[in-house]
Amino acid sequence: VKGKRTGFEENSCAVARSLGIIGDWWSLLIIRDALSGKRRFSEFQKHLGLAKNILSARLAKLVDQGIMKQVPAADGSAYRDYVLTEKGEKLYLVIAALWQWGEEFCFSPGEAKPFIVDAVNDEALAPLELRTTSGRSVGPRGYKPMTEKAKAGM
Amino acid sequence: VKGKRTGFEENSCAVARSLGIIGDWWSLLIIRDALSGKRRFSEFQKHLGLAKNILSARLAKLVDQGIMKQVPAADGSAYRDYVLTEKGEKLYLVIAALWQWGEEFCFSPGEAKPFIVDAVNDEALAPLELRTTSGRSVGPRGYKPMTEKAKAGM
Repeated sequence: VKGKRTGFEENSCAVARSLGIIGDWWSLLIIRDALSGKRRFSEFQKHLGLAKNILSARLAKLVDQGIMKQVPAADGSAYRDYVLTEKGEKLYLVIAALWQWGEEFCFSPGEAKPFIVDAVNDEALAPLELRTTSGRSVGPRGYKPMTEKAKAGM
Repeated sequence: VKGKRTGFEENSCAVARSLGIIGDWWSLLIIRDALSGKRRFSEFQKHLGLAKNILSARLAKLVDQGIMKQVPAADGSAYRDYVLTEKGEKLYLVIAALWQWGEEFCFSPGEAKPFIVDAVNDEALAPLELRTTSGRSVGPRGYKPMTEKAKAGM
């Protein structure tokens, strides 16, 4: 799905807009790899097994959208590294939601699967929960969109 | 990105596997619409502005992956409705993560944007937070994957 074709970037729905701005599945996997510390074109390329022209286009879009930025190589070489901006780092919650959903539903019983654990002391992570600001748990049907206009009129 | 081409469904990474099983951006928007109560082919088609053959293929994949199921039409007509399974409903956390990220980063100042609010009393929703089971907050770089094998060996 190309942003150009769908115009997702201009969509009034924040979900569609986010998807349009991120790019595609590959973009999310690049972000996942960047979160795990990969920085160099060749590292992404090797880990994702992605054609160079496709990786190059995805990285360019991520930079263009302010999700990643290019910085001088950490090792002082002439290469440029790709690192996440704050905007890009915040996508870790999308990655975590996909990861937890996959863990719960997408592995066969007995199949070896990775778990997310805390990096500090290997503590297990709690499932993400959607809550109201007062702390009440919100289920799959428990929320609705509201426009700023409607909000202001309340 | 076709699952067939990438083999994401068999990937050992739960993120990649989730993406492969979901399908593509359109699939997530179909799930978003289903969460908001849409059930009929024509409703999805109209709301997404998606070509019928593409919508048909996406719905078939969602059913095939156990994310949606077909049920007799709620109005007693001969149509079949598409509803989310429990597995599908749980994707609301992915949708919510995308929504909150979009709200925070993808709208211009002053641009009208929708907010997610609680359906019961219009209370604002708190940003999703990744936490350890003991409740410690986990940031973008605060987690790591661990295989079951490594876990068992601890």
